[in-house]
Amino acid sequence: MPLIINTDATSLLSEPSTPNLSTEAPGFACPLPLPAGDRILLGHGSGGKLSAKLVRQIFLPALGNPVLNRLEDQAIVHLKDSRLAITTDSFVVKPLFFKGGDIGSLAVHGTINDLAMGGAKPLWLTAAFILEEGLPIETVRRIAASMQQAAANAGVPIITGDTKVVEKGSADGVFINTTGIGLVPEGLFLSAEQARPGDVILVSGMLGDHGIAILAEREGLRFETEIQSDSAALNTLVACLLDAAQEVR
Amino acid sequence: MPLIINTDATSLLSEPSTPNLSTEAPGFACPLPLPAGDRILLGHGSGGKLSAKLVRQIFLPALGNPVLNRLEDQAIVHLKDSRLAITTDSFVVKPLFFKGGDIGSLAVHGTINDLAMGGAKPLWLTAAFILEEGLPIETVRRIAASMQQAAANAGVPIITGDTKVVEKGSADGVFINTTGIGLVPEGLFLSAEQARPGDVILVSGMLGDHGIAILAEREGLRFETEIQSDSAALNTLVACLLDAAQEVR
Repeated sequence: MPLIINTDATSLLSEPSTPNLSTEAPGFACPLPLPAGDRILLGHGSGGKLSAKLVRQIFLPALGNPVLNRLEDQAIVHLKDSRLAITTDSFVVKPLFFKGGDIGSLAVHGTINDLAMGGAKPLWLTAAFILEEGLPIETVRRIAASMQQAAANAGVPIITGDTKVVEKGSADGVFINTTGIGLVPEGLFLSAEQARPGDVILVSGMLGDHGIAILAEREGLRFETEIQSDSAALNTLVACLLDAAQEVR
Repeated sequence: MPLIINTDATSLLSEPSTPNLSTEAPGFACPLPLPAGDRILLGHGSGGKLSAKLVRQIFLPALGNPVLNRLEDQAIVHLKDSRLAITTDSFVVKPLFFKGGDIGSLAVHGTINDLAMGGAKPLWLTAAFILEEGLPIETVRRIAASMQQAAANAGVPIITGDTKVVEKGSADGVFINTTGIGLVPEGLFLSAEQARPGDVILVSGMLGDHGIAILAEREGLRFETEIQSDSAALNTLVACLLDAAQEVR
């Protein structure tokens, strides 16, 4: 039976979202440095073992409840006879614009895909901007236009938002949070937890394109062929897949 | 007929959320400086005229749709026979801890109150953290504990979250986004737009306490009596009020 996973690669650099804790067996030797002097390290946001530790040691003891404890990329809750999927993600990608996309399209695609990976039909998005004082207005305009195009292409409207401005030096240009709300069809249960030995993994494209595109831009790397981010909304693809292959889990 | 407005005062310094554009009549002389060289100024996040301009000139042309265009603090959408209220807010308050609260409790209260001001019963919150490299883990622990206490007191669980870490100097300690989802009772329509000349305004407490508490902390001001932030979740108060006074709008 196939397992569907998100290979949109946005998680590599800009979406280290809730990690799967099950790889951290007790006594397992951790190859990553432990937090020096109990301070936040960049690795705490990487989606790897340090992130898992932060979630397990700080956030879950404080905030844990049956829905949050599942640690999926989206929470599934019930409202009357509807099953809602809810997900949130902040986007802090650098540079803001890269080959194949920008922070705006990425913020729309990433959250839509977190819903789609739970089998949810995305219904609405929220968008919250933290802008750094001194940022060119034109940059905000380009990012907003890109978000709108991404949202329109995916058929998911942005219905509410928020803008904060912080002093120059207090943020890195633009941070965007998008929160997504979707509807999960009755009887559908997709989850990374349902992966079993022997499962076939369906991938939606080349692995790593988005990550390499960002790194290349950031470090000024050149390749013989141009590598573009493959950031895209996968909700339509997932819907087609679920129609065609009922046994996807 | 009385009008209910949110005087929880969190909007003064840390929640300059979607502004009311109706005060900007054409030709109205703007006392605030215009953007110098088309760059983001701190005032663009203040919730005042510059914020209104940014929303009207940049965000609405790009992202506008019938729900977003209403520019209320919460979007109301329909799902089958339910009316949902959805709101998002980022919290960038400095200092992180102040008399009467901290960024964590404020992030919970602010979003719950944005829902309550639309008459919605808050159901769920999401929490997304942007942490600065080097931040003491203990600070994260204190903030998470405070969020949990605020959420538990208000009876609204945090059901999904996200953590990003940015390089030292790329953010100011901690930014928190909370998004809230609530249920609006059938037939209830609360909105700032429904204010009419002659309305009586109900206030929930002293005006300005939160703002003064933050400013005092930031600037090292001392007063004869200690002024504390009155940050609090008002959902229960609003529910009681709606029960007692049907004509509130």
